Amino acid sequence: MKSSFNDTFLRACRKEPTPYVPVWYMRQAGRYQPEYRKIREKYSFFEMNYIPEVCAEVTKLPVDQLGVDAAILFADIVTPLKPIGVDVEIRSGIGPVIDNPIRNTADVRRLGELDPVSDIPFITDAVKILANELRVPLIGFAGAPFTLASYMIEGGPSKNYYKTKAMMFTAPETWALLMEKLADMTITYLRAQIAAGAKAVQVFDSWVGAVSEADYREFIFPTMHRIFSSLKDTGVPLIYFGVGTGHLLRSFNELPVDVLGLDWRVTITQARTEYGVDKALQGNLEPALLLAPWETLEKKAKQVLDEGTEQPGYIFNLGHGIFPQCSVETMQKLTALVHSYSRKNGEMIV
Amino acid sequence: MKSSFNDTFLRACRKEPTPYVPVWYMRQAGRYQPEYRKIREKYSFFEMNYIPEVCAEVTKLPVDQLGVDAAILFADIVTPLKPIGVDVEIRSGIGPVIDNPIRNTADVRRLGELDPVSDIPFITDAVKILANELRVPLIGFAGAPFTLASYMIEGGPSKNYYKTKAMMFTAPETWALLMEKLADMTITYLRAQIAAGAKAVQVFDSWVGAVSEADYREFIFPTMHRIFSSLKDTGVPLIYFGVGTGHLLRSFNELPVDVLGLDWRVTITQARTEYGVDKALQGNLEPALLLAPWETLEKKAKQVLDEGTEQPGYIFNLGHGIFPQCSVETMQKLTALVHSYSRKNGEMIV
Repeated sequence: MKSSFNDTFLRACRKEPTPYVPVWYMRQAGRYQPEYRKIREKYSFFEMNYIPEVCAEVTKLPVDQLGVDAAILFADIVTPLKPIGVDVEIRSGIGPVIDNPIRNTADVRRLGELDPVSDIPFITDAVKILANELRVPLIGFAGAPFTLASYMIEGGPSKNYYKTKAMMFTAPETWALLMEKLADMTITYLRAQIAAGAKAVQVFDSWVGAVSEADYREFIFPTMHRIFSSLKDTGVPLIYFGVGTGHLLRSFNELPVDVLGLDWRVTITQARTEYGVDKALQGNLEPALLLAPWETLEKKAKQVLDEGTEQPGYIFNLGHGIFPQCSVETMQKLTALVHSYSRKNGEMIV
Repeated sequence: MKSSFNDTFLRACRKEPTPYVPVWYMRQAGRYQPEYRKIREKYSFFEMNYIPEVCAEVTKLPVDQLGVDAAILFADIVTPLKPIGVDVEIRSGIGPVIDNPIRNTADVRRLGELDPVSDIPFITDAVKILANELRVPLIGFAGAPFTLASYMIEGGPSKNYYKTKAMMFTAPETWALLMEKLADMTITYLRAQIAAGAKAVQVFDSWVGAVSEADYREFIFPTMHRIFSSLKDTGVPLIYFGVGTGHLLRSFNELPVDVLGLDWRVTITQARTEYGVDKALQGNLEPALLLAPWETLEKKAKQVLDEGTEQPGYIFNLGHGIFPQCSVETMQKLTALVHSYSRKNGEMIV
């Protein structure tokens, strides 16, 4: 590791002391940035992913611009689905749309295996460029099987996930096979990113909060346990995140992960005390506060920081991604606030 | 009250003993019913609301067909918005769409007051017909201010409610005025339904689960407290329901309501023990189970009933509404199961 390398984020993931609270933001490279929009004019979303130099450039944008302590690979959670036979397309203002949704066991059997070297060399190429150029850790990432399956079964974003849950309930063997195949893919995909230089990985189970805890334990938990267990030997911090997952936190805490990402609904103190979470925590400012007057945003960010720094192992983030209406200036001020407010006169904070 | 009147639902709302667990379903009149679809072919959604005889017919459909213990007025939560000056339209497959969204204080000031007699006589006319003809209680209902405001500010359904929250954070006085006006409307609307014969009322705060507890307490709780307090003198049971509101249950329990409706994420036992809810409870079968094989549905419904009947004051329902893919036959079997499984040899159950 180079001497100028900023490993604050990695130390916080491991619950080691840090001189200040590290911060990064979900979707920190995105449409709110004029530079991003300029690149986006020239390339399709998939091209921004598929051309390693462009992907690396976009990934690096927020690191210098905002001063964050980690970069996250610019990609979409559905990127590895195409190579395994899912006809996915990102439609502007909608999200991933899939024209050949999964309906039965035959559809699941037809899904191929991911070979990162031949299928998505651009991803590992981008990671290699970034690992070489960045002075902060690069976070690799993947979508979790439930969340990926929800797109694959519903055919796109959903409000209620009834088709996905119907498969869980009516065809548990088909569901189990789908989870198994997606878990294999996720493991392969993340191992490839780690081998290429990703210093941590986050698994986005964005929509799993739609499921009850009993159903999570029966239909999803074993898959997530296998994914994280089989990544343990890589030694990189493992992060798990979902939206609206307060009711699942006790189960999440039983997974072999290092960090749990929280949305804004459950406070950090509640996660630690009421839900007994003993992992490092990442989050959890209400993203809509990015549109609030600075004084309101500052006050609420300090509250989050006060709660976060009560115990070792805390990374500042939003409860969900930055969105297009946000301003670069606000993100810069917020990042500076996180650093300055949490820096305690050269002392290491826990 | 007529001797043949089935007041099981009302008794459960008041935590009185009942011979079996009463049941009704959110959106129990809807597209899953062939009879509903037939009526829908002849009338627009608004006409089904605006012609009292049609509204009454649709409202009664599930009572005889399923054997439920309560009817709920067939209407949409946005029905009373038109008379106060909101240009709302229900678009098939989307939901309520509003072409003149609220943007500032002037827009809020422009909102009128609801006069149920002149503005929506069809609603009270339908309630009167139903109160006369039904042998089960009629539940009146209204949308809660936050949920109504979310449509009025976003211009339609939303995934993240950023515009709504931005108004809360950036223009708290505008927000407070909007909440005040919508609360006045809700109170007037519900009092009119109760005066016409509604025997209970449910306030749908469907999307308030998107808000953190701190923000709920600051920006929404006082309004809800005022609404329910000012309906107390009517003597009818007051029900409050929202989706994904586990993190708000402690605050909900401080409201002067009789019944809290739960979605499927928090179990009834958790609500009572972990969140200390001491109100009657209504819910909370995962709606997607309506697509599951009968054995699975039966097992899960019995689990919900076992939890529900551990304490007095329990009404069976789904965690959210019936949806078009459901079958009438399944709903009939489920209703019969709730009644038979909970009926304990003539004993009163608590």
